[in-house]
This record gives sequence, structure tokens and C-alpha cells, in this order.
Amino acid sequence: MNVSSKPVKGFLLDITGVLYNSDPNTIGRVIQGSVEAVNRLYAESVVRFVTNESTRNRKHLFEKLTKLGFTLNEEHIFMPVPEAKRYIKDNNLRPHILVHKGVLEEFGDLNTNHPNCVLLGDAERGFTYETMNAAFRVLHDTDDPLIVTLGCGKFYQRMDGPCMDVGGFTRALQYACDARVITIGKPEEQFFKAAIDDMGLTTDEVVMIGDDIVSDVGGAQKAGIRGVQVRTGKWRQSWINHSIKPDLLADDLRSAVDMLLKKKTN
Amino acid sequence: MNVSSKPVKGFLLDITGVLYNSDPNTIGRVIQGSVEAVNRLYAESVVRFVTNESTRNRKHLFEKLTKLGFTLNEEHIFMPVPEAKRYIKDNNLRPHILVHKGVLEEFGDLNTNHPNCVLLGDAERGFTYETMNAAFRVLHDTDDPLIVTLGCGKFYQRMDGPCMDVGGFTRALQYACDARVITIGKPEEQFFKAAIDDMGLTTDEVVMIGDDIVSDVGGAQKAGIRGVQVRTGKWRQSWINHSIKPDLLADDLRSAVDMLLKKKTN
Repeated sequence: MNVSSKPVKGFLLDITGVLYNSDPNTIGRVIQGSVEAVNRLYAESVVRFVTNESTRNRKHLFEKLTKLGFTLNEEHIFMPVPEAKRYIKDNNLRPHILVHKGVLEEFGDLNTNHPNCVLLGDAERGFTYETMNAAFRVLHDTDDPLIVTLGCGKFYQRMDGPCMDVGGFTRALQYACDARVITIGKPEEQFFKAAIDDMGLTTDEVVMIGDDIVSDVGGAQKAGIRGVQVRTGKWRQSWINHSIKPDLLADDLRSAVDMLLKKKTN
Repeated sequence: MNVSSKPVKGFLLDITGVLYNSDPNTIGRVIQGSVEAVNRLYAESVVRFVTNESTRNRKHLFEKLTKLGFTLNEEHIFMPVPEAKRYIKDNNLRPHILVHKGVLEEFGDLNTNHPNCVLLGDAERGFTYETMNAAFRVLHDTDDPLIVTLGCGKFYQRMDGPCMDVGGFTRALQYACDARVITIGKPEEQFFKAAIDDMGLTTDEVVMIGDDIVSDVGGAQKAGIRGVQVRTGKWRQSWINHSIKPDLLADDLRSAVDMLLKKKTN
């Protein structure tokens, strides 16, 4: 499939690196043209936001995007935290939780007595030898060690530089304990599907636009969704030679939307 | 090969979990019978010590073992740190160093300007999000990211419980950057060979005795050395079903030495 093979009826957008660049000291900086692009999508198409963000809850992320100038519907943001809670409850798991303090309270209603798995998010500074070792000991003590991880990203781009994402810390625990890993979030098919179902569309009617060649583009393609790579956020020139080939490569979100909506009206 | 196939002319011993159990608050506790076993090996055979210990230098480890009651020759202890220094110098590498503060000064003479690789040891509490991210950024900025790691252990047993070893943290950085990894220490063949050469023996004339089924037993076997598993240190009953099968399974070092030296004199 490529981007011209079928009309585009809906859009899935990654957030960080596509709508704005994050920064440890400010609320971040809008990527030029992305506010207008989102407005155009709301006016002329259907759009949902799919992010692996696990350092804050949806309300906080929505407020941040609003402050940055975006106009969107909070319920159109799909994040791993609610999905992970559902998975944990459905499977009667009792997690040892190692996540960012910004989302810890979201998990307040889970049963965490005698934990039988580890729930891992992008804890950022919450990752220390002590917290990793505490999670390790839980896994080491179980017969079938299981990590439920909020995404498996390699890194994300912050304005002060690239930062390790939860994926590496997941691999650390997985290696130390020979643990199984369940990923909640991109690039898992189920995560994209939830947003597409919400639009009332099918996988071959939508495109996913993101800055991560693996989680966004590769993950979407594996789920039968066309994947659009933007040259913002964590984009690296060397990805030109990546084994994953985007259906479309665009300078930024505005450019991608202009190309795809122009196409749509032709 | 199994333990009875050829006379045993020399012994390689792992240290932690075989000679003594480590403890974060004391110098550790001797494993019963191991002092006598080492004495017997010095009297009746040839022995070298091969450890992946990277939290202190050889002098400190020697002094600790002496305090614990062991009589041995400091030069018979083989550790990854000197081997790693040799590798880095031989290959003109400029490492970003993330190791335990107890061995940091050992690397004081290396060129660390404009680092082009990461040297990783068991930093223990030195592993934080900040130190991991600093190492990540060095790797992310190089065209051919390389990690030189002082062993790739999954965990080690301390008297207060199991603790994550350097292997997991190596995997974290490897995943985040798609880095190459060079392991210095067990289970690398070269590391066992250095100790065997020092004894003037060949691989099929010696046995390796350790508590780690992968690094000690599996590593030795892969190098053509018979691997003896002891049921002390990090030993787990579930390893009975491990794909790696020891040439001999013994309760502890004393028992292994008794069996093998008795055999030798028959």
C-alpha cells in the first residue's frame, strides 16, 4: 500500500515531535504550522491523537496542548495509561508500579498487594538503581515474570537533546529476569485500532503521521495503516536507509496534511 | 566432554557466590569450607580466580579476601578492568565512562576527550536516569555506537537479596541506540584463556567452578572448558531444567574440590 492507493478519510497523529517539541524547562514549543494543520483536519476530515506519552495524564496533556494554542477534543487523545489499567484489571494482575510521578495517581485503584508483575512507564528521573532493583526483585521472585510496559520507544527528542525512553529500561529488566513483555501503546496494533474504531473507519482508510520510524510508521504499517514520516521531532537523516519505508515522507505536519487533503479534494 | 573425561590439572574459580557471599553492609560472609578448599587447591593443584567484579580494583578485592581468611596470590585474580583498559588502548578508543566509583580511578590515564564509545561497568547506585542518558547521548551522536561492557551478568546474589548486574543496563543502552556490544569478562573465551595461559595449561585440562549457569558454566563450556555448577550464591533450583548442563553439579566449592581432587589422585 502507498499513500495514493486509497482515499484518506481519517488521520492519526503522534503528538510529541509532530505537534510540538518538548522541553524540560518550559511547556515546549509548537512546531510551525501544526496548529493550523490540526484546525484544518478538524474542519475538513477526522482526526485522533495517538501518543505513547506516559509522564502525565490525559487532562494535563490536553491542558498543555490548549496552552500551546491547539484546539482539540480531550477525548480524541489516546494514551497507554487507560489501556494499561484495563489490561491489568482484565487479567487480574497485581502490579509493582514504576512510572512517572505525574501518572502514579491514575493507578491508585489497582490492587498492588503481593505483586505478580511489573508495570513500567517512562519514569524519567524515577529510574534509579534502587527503583530498578526493586522491580527486578519482584520479577525475580515470580515463576513467570511479566512486564507490562507503556510503550517500547527507544528515545524521544527534547529541546535540550535526545532522551532515553521506557523501551531501554524495559529491555534491562527483561534481560535480567528473562521476563515476558506486554507492550501497551504504539507500535501495538490494538492501540491504533482503538483510535480508528472511535472514528468509525477501517485501517485502510486512515494514515498515521509520526516522527518515529519504528513506533509510528512501522507500527502503523504492520497494522495495515499507511505510515507518514515527518522530518520534525526525533527525525534522523540516516532513516532514509531504514528498513522501514514510509508511505509518505513530509517536511512537517502542515506539509503532510496539505498534501493529503489536497489529494482528498481532487 | 564431562568431568570424568580427562584429568583435571587446574582450577578456575569464580569468587562471589563461590568463595563468599557479598553484603552491602559488611565485608560479606565466607561460604563454609571455601577457605579450606582454596588452601587444598594451592597445595595439591593449580588455581586462578576469574571474576566479573567491577565495583572495586584488584588490590581492594585481594585485601577483602584476605580479611575474610583466604590465602591467595593477588596476581592470580583475573578481573575485567585491566582487560578493558588494554582493549580500549589497543583500539584507540576514547570512552565515556560509567562505572562504579570504586574503580573510576583505574581509568584515570585513558583519553576521554570527545568520547566515541561508552565503557560500562556495574555502577550500582551510579546508575541513574541522568548517568544513563548521558551515556545514551554519547552513543546517539556516533555513527557506529559501541558499548564496551565489563561483563554481561544478569544479576548477582547479595545477602540482602538479588541485585541487577551490568548486563541489563548494557541492554538498555544497546536497545536505545542500536549499539554494538563488546563484552570484557566472562563468558568471553578470551577472558578464561588469559587465566589458563597463566597456569601454563590447555582448556581441556581445567575446570571452571561458578554459581552462574550462563557466565560461568555456559561460558566455560563454549570455550572448551569443563563447567562445574555449585549450589551456592545465586544458584536456583529451576536451573536443573536449564538448557546449559553443567559437567558437574556440587553442593559447594569444598564438595566440588573434594570430588575433583579425589578423582585426580585415584
